[in-house]
Amino acid sequence: MEQTFTYERLLSFTEKIFQKIGCPAKDALTAATALLSADLRGVDSHGVARLIGYVRLWEAKRANTKPAIRIIHETISTAVVDGDSGLGLVVAPYSMQVAIDKAKVAGTGWVSVQHSNHFGIAGYYALKAVEQDMIGIVMTNASPLVAPTFSVERLLGTNPICVAFPAGEEPPFVADLATTTAANGKLEILQRKSQQAPAGWIQDKKGNISTNPHELKDGGALLPLGGDREHGSHKGYALGAIVDIFSAVLSGANYGPWVPPFPAFMSMPDEMPGKGIGHFFGAMRIDAFREAAEFRLHMDKWIRRFRSAEPIQGQERVLIPGDPEREIQAIRLEKGIPLLHAVVEDLEFLGEKFDVVL
Amino acid sequence: MEQTFTYERLLSFTEKIFQKIGCPAKDALTAATALLSADLRGVDSHGVARLIGYVRLWEAKRANTKPAIRIIHETISTAVVDGDSGLGLVVAPYSMQVAIDKAKVAGTGWVSVQHSNHFGIAGYYALKAVEQDMIGIVMTNASPLVAPTFSVERLLGTNPICVAFPAGEEPPFVADLATTTAANGKLEILQRKSQQAPAGWIQDKKGNISTNPHELKDGGALLPLGGDREHGSHKGYALGAIVDIFSAVLSGANYGPWVPPFPAFMSMPDEMPGKGIGHFFGAMRIDAFREAAEFRLHMDKWIRRFRSAEPIQGQERVLIPGDPEREIQAIRLEKGIPLLHAVVEDLEFLGEKFDVVL
Repeated sequence: MEQTFTYERLLSFTEKIFQKIGCPAKDALTAATALLSADLRGVDSHGVARLIGYVRLWEAKRANTKPAIRIIHETISTAVVDGDSGLGLVVAPYSMQVAIDKAKVAGTGWVSVQHSNHFGIAGYYALKAVEQDMIGIVMTNASPLVAPTFSVERLLGTNPICVAFPAGEEPPFVADLATTTAANGKLEILQRKSQQAPAGWIQDKKGNISTNPHELKDGGALLPLGGDREHGSHKGYALGAIVDIFSAVLSGANYGPWVPPFPAFMSMPDEMPGKGIGHFFGAMRIDAFREAAEFRLHMDKWIRRFRSAEPIQGQERVLIPGDPEREIQAIRLEKGIPLLHAVVEDLEFLGEKFDVVL
Repeated sequence: MEQTFTYERLLSFTEKIFQKIGCPAKDALTAATALLSADLRGVDSHGVARLIGYVRLWEAKRANTKPAIRIIHETISTAVVDGDSGLGLVVAPYSMQVAIDKAKVAGTGWVSVQHSNHFGIAGYYALKAVEQDMIGIVMTNASPLVAPTFSVERLLGTNPICVAFPAGEEPPFVADLATTTAANGKLEILQRKSQQAPAGWIQDKKGNISTNPHELKDGGALLPLGGDREHGSHKGYALGAIVDIFSAVLSGANYGPWVPPFPAFMSMPDEMPGKGIGHFFGAMRIDAFREAAEFRLHMDKWIRRFRSAEPIQGQERVLIPGDPEREIQAIRLEKGIPLLHAVVEDLEFLGEKFDVVL
């Protein structure tokens, strides 16, 4: 049920589709590159599988493909960016660049973003800072699927946090994590296979523990990292809340239950308190703290010590955050990106609609 | 088995003990206030119960009560502080003040600290920023008790993250969380009561799941937030690692398995790559992003929406991070701080030794 495509083929197709819906050529390439980075890194749920979703947002006039993205407030180390309802895939690269430019001058740069849309995967933008010998920090809020500890209601998105550190000879450390027990993409896999979910991933509409992966369609919720109170779900809830506040309360975007949904067919929340969805970007120059060469040396030592830790029986090795994604990327650049049949059908549909050859 | 003391009495006693071990008067008050903030906020494991531990660190010449704390590297928004082996309870307030002062000028301030010792609770320092209409961020590393996902070895401390946001009419949002499933203090309670721990808190020396709270004394380990791989322990591991790197790799402190232990009787690790333990402090001026009054308005709205969420059956309400600690503080300021008999004995021992009346 899978078909494999080269990265170049999918990138070129995606770029053309973005052009067809009105993106200037430069933005189309930027957006396609950001989107495809998810497929390369193995985060299939956030990659080209969502292309049709972005197109539908544009059709519903909820995404602006010719946005006038601009800074609406700033200091030497901070800025708030208004994304003008642009694709997150275009607003996010702009905003991370502002953070990097601020860091060049002030040591660190911090950008909170309002009036944006979904941006794909956080890790891609954090690595932009790493390329400049900076620490990269990325957050975004998302539409509410997660119930805070003790809540029946869904009030938070899966709100990821990414922090990436450059190293020396070792590849960078890249932690990119949803603040839930399990990502929604994993649930979708169980749904397709009609398998049960482990306890601690979801609750039903009354807040009872459930193992039915279809529960979310019936008023259920994803659970914060930790799963239940006894295992620290109040910490996962707090982390998701922190992401929400940095991304949206600080920028003037929508937060909590008012974050607009990604699927264009879903109606917008009532009485929204802000504009669009929110992101947060940070860039920190290593040499604003210590000599970069020295830092890299110690990062290598850190990484090697952890990677060489004695593994528990039945496990091959201890991983460094970013290892799995980097390894998948190497394989997919060489052997291609496998897409599910349903995703290929969506792309073919888009190809016919916009007269673009897949 | 408990005895209750007024806050003022414990503060005055602690201040005098710090003076007796050589702290200048100002530092003694600073350290005592920081330490007692843990007792006030209900984090009993990190408060006056540890006073004897700090004294022993001084006796072992591992804590310097007359440190020359100084900035060794800086930019307009960043600094690295050398704590000169001072008490963390003195080094941390100094460093958070540097972050706040930087934020006044540059919008944000970021301080990584080397050559320090344990600092009590993170929340106390984050609230110093909140008092100045700033977001406060605090991290610290700690001696290794936590096994990364799939590791038999203990390589990380409980490495807490605190983020505090000011609000308007509502009290501040204060998330202060160890990056483990359960704090070590909770395990100590189970040890005293000879009760089993829930699965997901600890592993034994071979990395098997264990419910024996004494496992840590026999080569076992605390588990990262998430508990096991299926429930996202790789995320808790990543968060603990991020804290370690910000606090120590960025500053030149010791990291991972090389972080010195708090108990003075434990020997120091071999071939330590840095100086002392490390902390990390951030302060972000709200009005570097948007008008502070506007932010406060939306924080209040955020807090009220979450606090009024429909609770699951059997639970009274959904909490906001910081609610429990603030409520305990109000009670303890009025009714006093209960101390376990063993803690009172330690304090009496110190009182006799240094001729200070408890």
